[in-house]
Amino acid sequence: MKLRSAALASALIVALGTAAAQAPVVNKAITETEVLAAQRAWGDALVAISTAHERQGAVAARRLAGEVIDGAYGYQFGPVLFKPTLTEAPQTFRTTRAGALAYFVGGDPSFPKDTGFALKGWRKVDVNNAAIFIAGDVATSMGNVSITDKDGKVTTVDKTWKFLKDDSGKLRIVVHHSSLPYRAN
Amino acid sequence: MKLRSAALASALIVALGTAAAQAPVVNKAITETEVLAAQRAWGDALVAISTAHERQGAVAARRLAGEVIDGAYGYQFGPVLFKPTLTEAPQTFRTTRAGALAYFVGGDPSFPKDTGFALKGWRKVDVNNAAIFIAGDVATSMGNVSITDKDGKVTTVDKTWKFLKDDSGKLRIVVHHSSLPYRAN
Amino acid sequence: MKLRSAALASALIVALGTAAAQAPVVNKAITETEVLAAQRAWGDALVAISTAHERQGAVAARRLAGEVIDGAYGYQFGPVLFKPTLTEAPQTFRTTRAGALAYFVGGDPSFPKDTGFALKGWRKVDVNNAAIFIAGDVATSMGNVSITDKDGKVTTVDKTWKFLKDDSGKLRIVVHHSSLPYRAN
Amino acid sequence: MKLRSAALASALIVALGTAAAQAPVVNKAITETEVLAAQRAWGDALVAISTAHERQGAVAARRLAGEVIDGAYGYQFGPVLFKPTLTEAPQTFRTTRAGALAYFVGGDPSFPKDTGFALKGWRKVDVNNAAIFIAGDVATSMGNVSITDKDGKVTTVDKTWKFLKDDSGKLRIVVHHSSLPYRAN
Repeated sequence: MKLRSAALASALIVALGTAAAQAPVVNKAITETEVLAAQRAWGDALVAISTAHERQGAVAARRLAGEVIDGAYGYQFGPVLFKPTLTEAPQTFRTTRAGALAYFVGGDPSFPKDTGFALKGWRKVDVNNAAIFIAGDVATSMGNVSITDKDGKVTTVDKTWKFLKDDSGKLRIVVHHSSLPYRAN
Repeated sequence: MKLRSAALASALIVALGTAAAQAPVVNKAITETEVLAAQRAWGDALVAISTAHERQGAVAARRLAGEVIDGAYGYQFGPVLFKPTLTEAPQTFRTTRAGALAYFVGGDPSFPKDTGFALKGWRKVDVNNAAIFIAGDVATSMGNVSITDKDGKVTTVDKTWKFLKDDSGKLRIVVHHSSLPYRAN
Repeated sequence: MKLRSAALASALIVALGTAAAQAPVVNKAITETEVLAAQRAWGDALVAISTAHERQGAVAARRLAGEVIDGAYGYQFGPVLFKPTLTEAPQTFRTTRAGALAYFVGGDPSFPKDTGFALKGWRKVDVNNAAIFIAGDVATSMGNVSITDKDGKVTTVDKTWKFLKDDSGKLRIVVHHSSLPYRAN
Repeated sequence: MKLRSAALASALIVALGTAAAQAPVVNKAITETEVLAAQRAWGDALVAISTAHERQGAVAARRLAGEVIDGAYGYQFGPVLFKPTLTEAPQTFRTTRAGALAYFVGGDPSFPKDTGFALKGWRKVDVNNAAIFIAGDVATSMGNVSITDKDGKVTTVDKTWKFLKDDSGKLRIVVHHSSLPYRAN
């Protein structure tokens, strides 16, 4: 079957054994396990970009960031609803891939305030979900994400991610709202 | 909390224990287990209507059939895409609750050919799925359903069911296409 | 048909006229128009709570806020992923109805820092979406929401809303992440 | 943007003009218009295969049928829930691409009873929907499909189709249940 990859088949089809009532299942719904794995993958990618920057330089970090965006976000569907932690008006929302890349690694004159969030020496990412909402082929998580840098300093943000399961069975971020915690004066 | 029932909460929320990363989950996606249970419930209901008819008479059977339709189908959303096994043009499709009730228990002058499919002494229903397709908050099964009557005679049909998970977490039939197997002359 | 309300029917069924190929349609997908209307309804409700507070007092404002939460949010499904603009750890996320009500009108000793966000004399709400993502029976918007108070002072926040269409055809907020804009020092 | 094709962008993004509140929209929900177009495309493809068979022979018809299956069905997701009109047990359900191709053009010793449904001189396909149910990124239609052959003979079947919108915005058949009308003796 030309169109069907083994990887896709193994991702989507749950073989159910031998009894008469058991049938192959195509399941495009998202599970909590998949959400948690996609969150971990985002954290691992952030650390990997920081590490690539330190060890291999800016070009390698930029290349890796592009691969992360293409692999983990849903810009191929159109605009992604991405509000990064540290962006300012009038460039608060990064609905294009170029805007996301500029945020992560900087160096884009079209986004002059971006200094490269992913280049800040991150070492560890911890996710503490407040709740997860799964409805159909999308799932949203909300909670705190704590990011530790090479000096042990921890930055905690409030973060919402919405994941869509694509045709290959991969979760992609289609909404990402990150904000610094509010502090009353 | 006025709107929130304990039953709904227990159906939809998966408590995840004690570790820091565990969060409450609202999950409106359908699982294979839920599909199989809804299929069994349909079979049990068919047998129950037959049994009520024999033991308690036509009025009881009609009342039960109405409850089954209200509980297991999705007529409250609008038309249900229901093509029963034995209906004929121009009343092939039973998109209204009245048409479904007439099919199951007959006795409706608006549907003069209906003699009451659920009243035919059914004793047992077996489902043999060919495949199940879950996408989001709906799931479709296709396969054979074999129905045994009180004399041991088995009728096997080709059947497609599409289930929608409603706001209370209950699966409802929104598509039901049943047909006698094709036999070449 | 006992279960079927005229309101639901009119909301969900699109009558398609008279030609042979036209059929009734049940449509649970969300449209952009419905998203924009739900956003406006949220803004109108915020102003209405402020107005009720000024004209009718705290009891009326609290009662109205409860009605707004019950009508516009999805707490009946379980936890709502709600991160209001001005909440602080450890009560940042208001996944319960009680937490939402406390945020809007204050007066709940369980949420001692809440002073009632909806009581601050709001007069006008403007929504400026950066993008909208509709996938299935849910839709997410992201953008700026500007709220004007009785003195003409405008507060602009970055806001993400995810709406779910419930069984009656009504959009309900199941995710709400609001944050003050980041300002570099 | 490497991953983003112009075709995809034009299919999924609705540009909304110039006013302040208008934002780009990604819409993965299915519309009734898309369902009707996909139904017509299926009918056109059936006629095209018949015509290719008559004018260009069996090899051309088989090649075209393969292209139609790859373009219009969802076998790349896994099993398709396909119950063609004229199949018999134990090969009633054609959950694989090979089974679908054998049904349409025959010539596969693994499916010895298949004589090629698409090769029977079809000239015209008319769809008369009883109802359509759209929920999220899938939509199901149920109704009559009437197929006219080169001699003007009309065959009418009861048909259910479920379409899924894939990542490129294309509707794909993931469920297809077709049956000859029941006729009481």
